[in-house]
Amino acid sequence: MKVWELGEFGLIELIARNVGKPSREELVLGIGDDTAAWRTEKSIQLATTDILIQDVHFNLSTTTWRYLGWKALAVNISDIAAMGGTPSYAMVSLGLPPDTKVASVRELYRGIKAIAKKFEIDIVGGNISRAPVVIIDVSLIGNASQALLTRSEAKPGDQIAVTGYLGTSAAGGRMLKSSIKLDKSTTALLKEAHLRPKPRVAEGQTLVQHGVRAAIDISDGLISDLTHICKASKVGAKVWIDRIPVHPKVKAAFGNKALGMALSGGEDYELLFTAKSSVINKVKNVMSTPLMVIGEITREHSGQVTLLDEQGRAVDWKERGWDHFKSQGQGKA
Amino acid sequence: MKVWELGEFGLIELIARNVGKPSREELVLGIGDDTAAWRTEKSIQLATTDILIQDVHFNLSTTTWRYLGWKALAVNISDIAAMGGTPSYAMVSLGLPPDTKVASVRELYRGIKAIAKKFEIDIVGGNISRAPVVIIDVSLIGNASQALLTRSEAKPGDQIAVTGYLGTSAAGGRMLKSSIKLDKSTTALLKEAHLRPKPRVAEGQTLVQHGVRAAIDISDGLISDLTHICKASKVGAKVWIDRIPVHPKVKAAFGNKALGMALSGGEDYELLFTAKSSVINKVKNVMSTPLMVIGEITREHSGQVTLLDEQGRAVDWKERGWDHFKSQGQGKA
Repeated sequence: MKVWELGEFGLIELIARNVGKPSREELVLGIGDDTAAWRTEKSIQLATTDILIQDVHFNLSTTTWRYLGWKALAVNISDIAAMGGTPSYAMVSLGLPPDTKVASVRELYRGIKAIAKKFEIDIVGGNISRAPVVIIDVSLIGNASQALLTRSEAKPGDQIAVTGYLGTSAAGGRMLKSSIKLDKSTTALLKEAHLRPKPRVAEGQTLVQHGVRAAIDISDGLISDLTHICKASKVGAKVWIDRIPVHPKVKAAFGNKALGMALSGGEDYELLFTAKSSVINKVKNVMSTPLMVIGEITREHSGQVTLLDEQGRAVDWKERGWDHFKSQGQGKA
Repeated sequence: MKVWELGEFGLIELIARNVGKPSREELVLGIGDDTAAWRTEKSIQLATTDILIQDVHFNLSTTTWRYLGWKALAVNISDIAAMGGTPSYAMVSLGLPPDTKVASVRELYRGIKAIAKKFEIDIVGGNISRAPVVIIDVSLIGNASQALLTRSEAKPGDQIAVTGYLGTSAAGGRMLKSSIKLDKSTTALLKEAHLRPKPRVAEGQTLVQHGVRAAIDISDGLISDLTHICKASKVGAKVWIDRIPVHPKVKAAFGNKALGMALSGGEDYELLFTAKSSVINKVKNVMSTPLMVIGEITREHSGQVTLLDEQGRAVDWKERGWDHFKSQGQGKA
């Protein structure tokens, strides 16, 4: 059955059935009215939106509809995680070619539901439209009960740290696009990293609880996202490239290309943050997720990231990360 | 200058400069971080999202970028209006072909800013992406301090009423698409109705304050949107076609096609609501916007709209309104 046969309203009904019952008592209205509505206590609310467009952010030959649903929500959850917040309500806008299979839309929502359930998010609205390619735009609301992690709070002397491993998602993208054959466990690791990223919500909350105030999630790539922090905080950054946590399986599979993937591959959805070393040591003591200190915030070279080799010499690095309009013709996923 | 020359981040900076300073003290973060953030009092929050896609919802040969910006926000504001709420924060996701002129994006934001200013809305975030066609997806947050206008509160015996005139937007769309020449004042009226709709925010608030509880904004078309109310409220509706407020200029220009435009043309963004006649009379006394009672809610024929002629005979009406997937090949704007 095709989307155009079911029709817009049929599809909305299908989705309303598929997202299930909302979990929150304070929700007044979810899908089925002009807007979603909920009551709030006095707290800080968070809102973010991120779009996935076919053949720009993903390719249906290298992902599945279910993975796509997961990722569309995951990239937004990661933004809430990067604030130290908790996601709560999501709206999903779909653009679909009329000959899209209804089964595909069902699969998409299976992916959305799976991650929504994991992070206790209610899907409270959205809309569907005809489109020349598949478009998935998610808006996500969240809240933070106390201080936030922002891009503008990095201070000279702060250490720069990162959760998890970098470059795994970019390696996964390369593997899927070029149909490179790797061993079973590497294939599984890279595929998961690229198609089903795990946002660091609990980690973001731990950071903010222990006094970290500056963070960003790595979506464009380490250098690019660290540059965002430097510009917003009016500071510089130096990064020791031998401290970059490249996954050993990525090193084994991609050799000297692995570092580039970690520096500017993007879509890692790890948290990049800065804080005094005393704060970072406290965080290290309570967090089970691996943390790596990779550099230091500087007063000089404001707005810039300087890469240093083992001898402390500046390294010239050409690829700076993902830019939607400058990286023409190069699909991200 | 083209979008791809300026780059994604250059474009974000341009937009951040263009949306201006936020108006609310409680706003913690607007554009420039991972999410927007604001504090809230205890009230009902509203959230809605609506997408405009090139050659589906609009055509760049019949609209301008500035009109497009206005309309992208207007259609969302109309949803908040249909709840009796007040819009507050908006996020704008843009998908743009890389050769889009930067001047066009600036014009788009002039339109967005104009309506945002009129309704005191802060643009607090969004994202930009490369896309094969122009995509504008707006998410809008609002709040309601008291009761809401919902689709599910229509009761048998309620009168059905509508604000303003219907069919004017559809007539405008037809005029622009077919390059029909009409007199100056008709041309101006229809063009404004189609390209620069005025959401009924104040009217929605007046309705809810005076005891109305069931409403929807007319985006898909009168019959289609009244059917949404009937299904959600599990009631029927009868509508007297001679009471439909077709604008005299539309009648003069389009003759016997005018009624069809009013019944199923869509995009009127007027409010369709139901209430006891005593409530509607109270509303009529305080509202300067024209109101027309066009029918009655019935217990029988649940989920259905019945059209009646002057003699009270049921009229068969084929066109039921806009459906994104069933109306293939027919652009809405």
